[in-house]
Amino acid sequence: LSRAIQVTVLGAGSWGTTVGSLVAANASSVVWARDGAVAEEISSEHRNGRYLPDLELHPMLRSTASLESAVESADVLVMAVPSQGMRAVLEEAAKYVRPWIPVVSLAKGLEQGTRCRPTEVIAEVLPGHPAGVLAGPNLAREVLAGYAAASVIAMPDEHIARSLQVLFSSRVFRVYTATDVLGCELGGVVKNVIAIAAGMAEGLGVGDNTRATVVARGLAEITRLGVAVGADPRTFAGLAGLGDLIATCMSPLSRNRYVGEQVARGRTVAEVMTEMKMVAEGVRSARAVVELANAHGVVTPIMSEVDAVVNEGRTAADAFRGLRRVPPRSELQPA
Amino acid sequence: LSRAIQVTVLGAGSWGTTVGSLVAANASSVVWARDGAVAEEISSEHRNGRYLPDLELHPMLRSTASLESAVESADVLVMAVPSQGMRAVLEEAAKYVRPWIPVVSLAKGLEQGTRCRPTEVIAEVLPGHPAGVLAGPNLAREVLAGYAAASVIAMPDEHIARSLQVLFSSRVFRVYTATDVLGCELGGVVKNVIAIAAGMAEGLGVGDNTRATVVARGLAEITRLGVAVGADPRTFAGLAGLGDLIATCMSPLSRNRYVGEQVARGRTVAEVMTEMKMVAEGVRSARAVVELANAHGVVTPIMSEVDAVVNEGRTAADAFRGLRRVPPRSELQPA
Repeated sequence: LSRAIQVTVLGAGSWGTTVGSLVAANASSVVWARDGAVAEEISSEHRNGRYLPDLELHPMLRSTASLESAVESADVLVMAVPSQGMRAVLEEAAKYVRPWIPVVSLAKGLEQGTRCRPTEVIAEVLPGHPAGVLAGPNLAREVLAGYAAASVIAMPDEHIARSLQVLFSSRVFRVYTATDVLGCELGGVVKNVIAIAAGMAEGLGVGDNTRATVVARGLAEITRLGVAVGADPRTFAGLAGLGDLIATCMSPLSRNRYVGEQVARGRTVAEVMTEMKMVAEGVRSARAVVELANAHGVVTPIMSEVDAVVNEGRTAADAFRGLRRVPPRSELQPA
Repeated sequence: LSRAIQVTVLGAGSWGTTVGSLVAANASSVVWARDGAVAEEISSEHRNGRYLPDLELHPMLRSTASLESAVESADVLVMAVPSQGMRAVLEEAAKYVRPWIPVVSLAKGLEQGTRCRPTEVIAEVLPGHPAGVLAGPNLAREVLAGYAAASVIAMPDEHIARSLQVLFSSRVFRVYTATDVLGCELGGVVKNVIAIAAGMAEGLGVGDNTRATVVARGLAEITRLGVAVGADPRTFAGLAGLGDLIATCMSPLSRNRYVGEQVARGRTVAEVMTEMKMVAEGVRSARAVVELANAHGVVTPIMSEVDAVVNEGRTAADAFRGLRRVPPRSELQPA
């Protein structure tokens, strides 16, 4: 890209703020925060005390609560609002968006009701704009703290992916390019559902073997679903599939895993959700993901059990008993 | 199988003993221990204090230090000695082995010098016997303690795999069948090398993102190598590939991970190996695996760095710097 460019991140949650801070080292970077106090704190104190306490943001990162001023000068738009709120924010932003600019989603859920992936929502509200995702094993707090990590920028056009790659990269944050937007996006959505199962396993006090089994069989489900809807199976063995799945299922920092763990310890989903400051996308996506799988005739035992726990009050212990009831056959069969 | 059958496990390490104990619930089960005191302890006290202290073995599991008596009545032979010692034990056992009986390897290393996989050694010493593997995320201590886990029995013939499946299964130990012996075996071998890298990451104090990245990029290396030598790529997304890789890379109980962790903290490989009672197969396999990859023109950055650390005294910090030096391109490219 020839002249200095501006990247605007819509949403000042933990990951949006972190991505804004990463970009600030490479380009002009602005984060839109709905809350004026958060915007002020980011701009003047270089921190986001609500989501990322004790961590310093890049000093050049700016923030504003004005959607208009954030969007009108954007050369790249990064969508960092949860999937359920994305359409409303995009519709509001659409009035100010320059033509042609690429839109990158960071969200990892399906829109309830429509079952749309975030890039599908972007295509509906901002038709013609190249839409893609940044996805990978990226726990925000660790990336901001400067731990090494890697991610994938997936855009339909490899050239655009390569132009964006340099904006998000740092010495310790390695960004690979990809063109399988569908696969990278679906990997991020579905892993949040599987992470709830991994959390339930944790909460039930099972061992490392069981957790590894949930991840391996969960990846098989994600891959079968992805292939059925047209994704490249290799994507699911990569950073946005397996990589993100492992980080989310194994890290104590993962919100979806936390929800599963708490539910297995006897709390209700509603209780846990109320207490959390952040959104656990997997809870909201579980039903939509299972519906999508059913619509394509894909068998997904783990995701279906998570859906039953989250939406029908089934207990975690019953869910695991349900998974064990199917006798194992060939590993290549779905259950 | 029509009449009562006997399964003989050669080797009374932690996993051999555990598998013998699992089988004892389904068939006559004998473990051969090189050390008479261990054999006596297993038979009369139902425990193996050296490798599995505090855990009770199945009361019907018997043990002997006589290779002849263990092997001559075996209808199924399970090889639970480390890869480097397998050929010698097999050559001694060959004199007593009944014709036709299947031989199942539990070992997860390559023979130094020949670079043979365990089933290749079996085919050389016992030609004509069906040879396969039992592989998966199976930390011995957890399986014996009764935590839920899953595994794959891979035999060239699906019918034999199905006959063996019932011998190893329990209510909480789920055994799937497969026919990709090569893939299942290679997955187990190579994951031990990757686990050393995961341990080094741990020892360097990196975060969950980095560990997940090592696992995801490590799986990509395993899969490329596997496909190059003729395995089914789907195997590596399964229990014997990804499943075992995750368990080994994430569990504090993993020996290979432990070696990597200690080396990253400044100890030498020789020091760590001397101190351990158990064999870390990855240390011995690293060179052979990298040679195999080179012979097939497969690029394996992570395994090559592990080899350099294990065999050439490179430091863990240098290894990670080396991995970061390659600029990321498309995710589908090897480095």
